[in-house]
Amino acid sequence: MEELLKENERIDDLQINDLKLIQNPQWFCFGIDAVLLANFVTLKKNARVVDLGTGTGIIPILLAGKSESSHVTGIEIQEEVAEMAQRSVKLNGLECRIDILPMDLKEAPQVLPVNSFDVVTSNPPYMHGQGLKNQEDKKTISRHEVKCNLEDVIRTASKLLKQHGKLFLIHRPQRIVDILVFCRQYKLEPKQLRLIHSTYDKKPNLMLLEAKKDANPELKFLDPLYVYDQEGKYTSEIHEIYGKNHIEKGANTNG
Amino acid sequence: MEELLKENERIDDLQINDLKLIQNPQWFCFGIDAVLLANFVTLKKNARVVDLGTGTGIIPILLAGKSESSHVTGIEIQEEVAEMAQRSVKLNGLECRIDILPMDLKEAPQVLPVNSFDVVTSNPPYMHGQGLKNQEDKKTISRHEVKCNLEDVIRTASKLLKQHGKLFLIHRPQRIVDILVFCRQYKLEPKQLRLIHSTYDKKPNLMLLEAKKDANPELKFLDPLYVYDQEGKYTSEIHEIYGKNHIEKGANTNG
Repeated sequence: MEELLKENERIDDLQINDLKLIQNPQWFCFGIDAVLLANFVTLKKNARVVDLGTGTGIIPILLAGKSESSHVTGIEIQEEVAEMAQRSVKLNGLECRIDILPMDLKEAPQVLPVNSFDVVTSNPPYMHGQGLKNQEDKKTISRHEVKCNLEDVIRTASKLLKQHGKLFLIHRPQRIVDILVFCRQYKLEPKQLRLIHSTYDKKPNLMLLEAKKDANPELKFLDPLYVYDQEGKYTSEIHEIYGKNHIEKGANTNG
Repeated sequence: MEELLKENERIDDLQINDLKLIQNPQWFCFGIDAVLLANFVTLKKNARVVDLGTGTGIIPILLAGKSESSHVTGIEIQEEVAEMAQRSVKLNGLECRIDILPMDLKEAPQVLPVNSFDVVTSNPPYMHGQGLKNQEDKKTISRHEVKCNLEDVIRTASKLLKQHGKLFLIHRPQRIVDILVFCRQYKLEPKQLRLIHSTYDKKPNLMLLEAKKDANPELKFLDPLYVYDQEGKYTSEIHEIYGKNHIEKGANTNG
């Protein structure tokens, strides 16, 4: 496997279905968010999926591991990051089921067939990008709305999805107004919302949203997801999501 | 006091600041929602407040009890209900600080000064009203969007509020998309959101929202509020909100 690695990179065992991922610790490394999003996604047989801002390729790889029959296209604007993701796909022998396209997600509707995908996923940059230094820094691009913003993600998702296709998004609850307003504006009706709290007595710090194209308004709130119990240990649900193996503590998020 | 009572009515002790309320059990009786909303409202000295869809007058009476210097106008479309609320105001000696106007809230901006109020509160009907029988039934009118809908409430609030004036609303989380979309549309920017769960492991069943007219986008999620603890008893926060006295179990809500 080592020939797939470049300088500074490492291979992480995802502890799920024997999947592995190449990461460069100097760039943005995946966090609990990506795992929670992949777990939240529901895929029908032969679903065709696009992941917007795929980064390391973690979400396509987890989705391919979760469902044997789907095809996932990961879009990543950072060429070097996309190239690394492509090597992770190869490392897992998933070349037939995952394509990584090094491109701006805003241009995806000119390259991919519009109104045709079953599912779009995205774990986009969470934070506003105005006035930031280091606009070309890889961690900055992954965390801040430098190369794309929330509206770009939602508009692009809407263009790519077929009627009744679904967007699955993870984001910060502080952005819920923008998220719901843009979803409604671009005909992606929010259908399910799950809030994630570090512990039960704290405000939510992540939100999972399922929105459906051209659907009727009717939102279902799901029971909250707590990451830690009152003793500071992972809750049983988190253990279940990660499999019963090792969970790295203090996994970073986009924020 | 008894001369203030009509047939089928009773006087309830609100257990807060010696306040009392006349209710008719055959009509809609106030629930925990109204108490939670009144508790959530922040009032500056001499604040001028309008309560849209005031029903029994519970919110104006609680707000007047909470703050010694505010003036509250309660708007209620059901004449008999408004008249009963007016008697509750008298019962508490609050005639100088509370006006109850028997009118359609949609017409309030033609009667009250627009762009002038500091605060608007509302505990509106939660449920859609299409196709319902008994459209003139008092409980139906209080619970369902028969006489007004969510957009009417938010549009009216926006008209009445001065710049940076605040709307405090309690509603069902299932309606959050409509709520946030209408708030943004009518220039009431959501600023604080608190979700209320019956217990910590259940999805939220009520939401408290503070929105500010002509404000910048920036939403703060607050820590969740749980009504019952794991033993099925009221949480300490609920006890604090109700005062340390009696709480009637199974208080009804609008829904």
